This record gives sequence, structure tokens and C-alpha cells, in this order.
Amino acid sequence: MPASDTVRIPLPDDRAYDIRIGSGLLDEAASWQGLPKAAAAVIVSNDRVAPMYAQRLRERLLAVYARVDVVELPDGEQHKDWASLNRVFDHLLAQALDRKTVLFALGGGVVGDMTGFAAATYMRGVPFVQVPTTLLAQVDSSVGGKTAINHPLGKNMLGAFYQPERVIADLDTLDTLPDRELRAGLAEVIKYGPIADADFLSWIEGNLDALLARDKAALAHAVRRSCEIKADVVGQDEKEQGLRAILNFGHTIGHAIESGLGYGEWLHGEAVACGMVLAADLSHRLGLMPADFTAQLRTLIERAGLPVVPPRLGGDRYLQLMRVDKKAEAGAIRFVLIEALGQAGLHAVPDALIVETLTAHGAA
Amino acid sequence: MPASDTVRIPLPDDRAYDIRIGSGLLDEAASWQGLPKAAAAVIVSNDRVAPMYAQRLRERLLAVYARVDVVELPDGEQHKDWASLNRVFDHLLAQALDRKTVLFALGGGVVGDMTGFAAATYMRGVPFVQVPTTLLAQVDSSVGGKTAINHPLGKNMLGAFYQPERVIADLDTLDTLPDRELRAGLAEVIKYGPIADADFLSWIEGNLDALLARDKAALAHAVRRSCEIKADVVGQDEKEQGLRAILNFGHTIGHAIESGLGYGEWLHGEAVACGMVLAADLSHRLGLMPADFTAQLRTLIERAGLPVVPPRLGGDRYLQLMRVDKKAEAGAIRFVLIEALGQAGLHAVPDALIVETLTAHGAA
Repeated sequence: MPASDTVRIPLPDDRAYDIRIGSGLLDEAASWQGLPKAAAAVIVSNDRVAPMYAQRLRERLLAVYARVDVVELPDGEQHKDWASLNRVFDHLLAQALDRKTVLFALGGGVVGDMTGFAAATYMRGVPFVQVPTTLLAQVDSSVGGKTAINHPLGKNMLGAFYQPERVIADLDTLDTLPDRELRAGLAEVIKYGPIADADFLSWIEGNLDALLARDKAALAHAVRRSCEIKADVVGQDEKEQGLRAILNFGHTIGHAIESGLGYGEWLHGEAVACGMVLAADLSHRLGLMPADFTAQLRTLIERAGLPVVPPRLGGDRYLQLMRVDKKAEAGAIRFVLIEALGQAGLHAVPDALIVETLTAHGAA
Repeated sequence: MPASDTVRIPLPDDRAYDIRIGSGLLDEAASWQGLPKAAAAVIVSNDRVAPMYAQRLRERLLAVYARVDVVELPDGEQHKDWASLNRVFDHLLAQALDRKTVLFALGGGVVGDMTGFAAATYMRGVPFVQVPTTLLAQVDSSVGGKTAINHPLGKNMLGAFYQPERVIADLDTLDTLPDRELRAGLAEVIKYGPIADADFLSWIEGNLDALLARDKAALAHAVRRSCEIKADVVGQDEKEQGLRAILNFGHTIGHAIESGLGYGEWLHGEAVACGMVLAADLSHRLGLMPADFTAQLRTLIERAGLPVVPPRLGGDRYLQLMRVDKKAEAGAIRFVLIEALGQAGLHAVPDALIVETLTAHGAA
């Protein structure tokens, strides 16, 4: 049996669950045992991942469920919408699948978010399992129960907090990940350093080449430590009443970039990477961090092959895009800023200062 | 201050809430105090109810919220769909309303279910208040946190369990209710008798004329007792793992009628009324109840001006429609049947027996 790590998400009322991390988990029978009983399971995937892994997963699941269907969605953030979601509902209802049906999200963040939202709302809730096949999904989006689709007026605007039964992160699926997506996933790994663990940031700086070379031991550590930090945060604040917001470091500007360019132009991780550089700069401008922290983070992000220069959308357009983002409650736009290496908090930032940072980085 | 009753829904983790029942509650300041603080509130209503009550409610809410918008949806079950729901999201996002915004559902069951689902999913959840203006909504759909929209392949197939902050049932709003809708609401009132309270069934039989004449004291008692029964059931089984299913007495055939004729042809309460007559007959055919119970229930339902003869859709079509209904898990279709006056349970019923009942009532 391959070695694997388990990280537990500590939540009350039977909502606690395990993230299993390791090589070969997809083909391991134990990965799929002990889940809720049902007559049928449905694998939801996309047209890039399904041809590689859906039949393998289906065969394993047939040892547990009498019937296992596969639903393929179009790949990409631009399809994270109601029309795609409805394909899942159309299948479930056309096949008269009942409220015990278990959904399996096989793919990256888009598949995971959409399958989770489908599970949260089909017949007012069916169980689901996350099977993330991208680094970004393994370290971030598959963990913690945030599910959503996009609306033309904003990213992830419609969704639910709905926890999976289990997360199976098979590191071998990263072998087939396009290089650009691997790098995008590293953006979310890097994120955990500044917000929660200075030592982890140093570790990433020392092991970035191994991570880019897809060294399994390095990836295993990066995924496990990322999940541990996320588990700790989600366990304290499941529904983002406060603390959990720190996981959105880099996301306020990141979402504005994604939305402003049109979903799918930049990958989510790329937008977040660039957003972190600007948020670091804001942290400095507000006197929270020294200027060399921005330089340190920018260097690491550049080494990871990720963008550090935002698209030139104009200051007003950025402000408008950020104001509609859900982190922007009435009044000044709030950013997750770094207060010390390994510590973050929400800060309201005056529009003028935001524009100053955007201008300094060529965005305004 | 007008007299009012309060029924509490007992739920854990801050999900408990009050149903206030009485005359004049809409104009009473206390109805709107103590709700979650927010910069904005949005009243969601329909194009029949809004002209009567939306501005009055808006004025009251302006004492609490700096901004109060009104969103009007098209009236009717046939509009309980994604397109209508999206009108609410379009407004919320176009106005950049934040995740603290409080939604108010002003109308009947369709408005309540849709507003609740919008609240459950907008930015992964905002608070909402039910302000039911139909008898059906006051005694049933506004209470208990079931929210949903329809899908072309089935009623209430997409939704969430999401509890309101409060329910304000102003009996005066029933003065403007069309007669047909009053009668449809009585179907759900009648329902509570056979499933939970034989004495209440007798009371309804003795007070049906007063209820049809909209006598306020009779309506107050009917609404309060209905809500008490529902509160007791929901408090024990919020997410319909078992007991709560008894509230669906008459609904399996009822949903098939609604869906088979096209949503909106029969009112929900009319379909449920007819469904209860057939479910009573099934209870008899399974040896649970004497034949005169079916006659007793049919007589009461006929006196209330509600249909007792199902549309002739054919036995196979009924079976198909019921199998896709969410109460129909894999295998035999399960019905809520009456086991004794005031006691109900779920029973799997063989297809042949269902067709026998449908045929006996002219439906097959």
C-alpha cells in the first residue's frame, strides 16, 4: 500500500472529514470505502481530465456502488456558470437519481466548486467527495466546503458552504498537469507562507526547483502543510465570519483581474499571484511591512513563473470590479494584508492608496 | 398594540426563530426590530402582492435600514425557476449589495421558496425574513427552512435547507387573498389533522365555514396550531432524515399532478388536497385505515371547495412522474400514509396498488 498522509478538517456535527494525500490513492480500494451508502454514484469531471482518469475511478467505484455514471463538463473558468451546472442537474433528473446519490468531483477547482454546489442544492443536498487532480485544488479549493458558480457580474457570487465527505488528493494525477497549471497551483501554496507560517515560506523558497520538477516528496510536503494550515483556519471559522478571510490574500485584486479580463484569460492562480504582489505593496504602504517583503514575495512569484505585473485595466475599473467583489462590504474596500511574516488581517484601504499601488505597478 | 401569538421553531446553533402570528403585524414597528444589522434590505415580492403591500413594508423597514429596494418577480408557480431567481441576483449584484444584506420574502409560497434559496446562495448565504401573505405560506411553506426552485424535470428539485431569521404572518394580508388561494391554503391546514392531531381535524370540520368566511379568530387558531405542529416536527428533524417526511402527506401524488399538468395549472394546495384523498385510499388498501376515513377526508376537502378527482394522466405517466420526485428513492415509490388518526409514516407501495388507486379515482 502506498504511503499516504491524512489531514483532518475539524468541524462539529458530523461535518469533520479527512483529506488523504499520497501517490496511487486513485487505485487504492481503501480510498473509496466507508463513504455513504447509495444505489448510484456520479463522477463529475471535465473534458480534459475525464479521458485520463474517469474510467479508472469508475471501475474502483463500481466495487462500492451498483451504478456509476460520468458527466463531463466543458473545461475552464469561463464555463463555471449556471448553464454548466444545469448539465449536472439535467443528468441527475433525467436518470431519476435519488437524494442519496453520491457525487464525485474529479478535476480542478472549477469542477470541485461546481460539483460541490450541485451536491449542496440537488434535492436540497446530497453527499459528495472531492478528487482534486490539480495542485490548486489539492492545496486549496477542494478543502473547506466553499462551493460556487460565477455570475456575469462577479466571480463565485452564487454558492454555499457545503462540506465534502472526504478529499482524495492523489499526487500522481499531478504528473499529467500542464506546466502552466502547476505554476498556478504554486501561487496558492506560496500564499500560506505569508499569512500563516514564515518557516513554510522559507521552505518553499528552498524547494521551489524541486516543486517545479514535480518531485513527489516535495509536492507531498507542500500539499500536506497547505492543507494543515487551511484545516486549522477552516476549523476555527467555517463560514468566514472573520479569520477565514485571510485565505483570500491576493484574491481581491486577483478576482478583479480575472473578472476584468474575462474569466479564463488568466488562470485563477496567476491572478492571485499578481494580487499578492500588490497586496504586499499595500501592506508596505500602510506601514505594516518593510519594502523588502514585497521584493521577497515578487522574487519568489517570478521564480515560480507567475505574473507580477497586472493588466492595465485602469484605476477606476479596478475599484469598480473590487467593490462588487463579496469581500467589499459597504464603504472602503477591505484587503487581506500581511501584518508580520506568518500573520495576516483584514484592513480597509482608502481608494486613493489602492490607485497609488495600481499605478506604481502599471495597472492604472 | 394588536394581539399576536408567537410560535418558536426550536433549532440548535442560533438557527431557532420565532413565527409571529396576528393582525396588523406589517405596520407594527416591533415586527422589524432586532433583526441582523445591515446597510441595505431588499424586499422580494411578486407583481400581484407588491402593489398592495411592498411600499408599506418598505416604509417600516426604512426605520431600520438606510436603503430598502424592492424586486418584483412574475407571479405563479410556473415562474419558480432559475430565470426568475436570477432576477434577484442581477439586482443584488448590479447594486453591489454586500453579504450582510437582508432579504424579505413578501408573498406566497413561490416568493418565499425563491427568496429563501436566493438568500441561501447569494455570496454563500445572507439573512432573510419570511413575510407570508397567503394562508398556504403562513401555515406551511414559510416555516421550516425548505427553499427551492423547480426544474423542468421536477418540482423543488434544486434548493437548500436554510432557515429564516423570523416569520411575520400578518393575518390581515389574508383579506386580499383570492378565494381560490384561501381554499388551497386550507388544504395544508387540513393536512396537519390526519398526520398529527385528530382533535385539530375535528376542530377544522367544526370551523370550516368560519375559516372560509375569513373569521380572524378562526384563522388565528388554524395558523397557530398548524405552525405549532410544523415547529414540533421540524425541531425534531430539520433536514428530513425521517419524521419530517410526514409533512408531505398528499404531496407525492400532488407533485405528480402539478408536474404532469404543467406547473401553475392546479395550485399546489389543490394538488395536495386531491393527493391526500388518494393517499387516504392507499392507507385503506394497505389495511392501515378503515374505508370511512377516506370518505371523511374527501367530504372535508370537498366542503373546502378543493378537487377530489385527479386529472386523467394515465397510470404509467403518474408512476414515471412520482419516480422522479425526490421522495421516490431507488425501488418502490414511498408514500406518507395515515396509520391512525393523528399518526403517519412512510410506506413503500407496490406499483400495482398505486395504479389500482389511480384507476379507482379515474386518473389512470
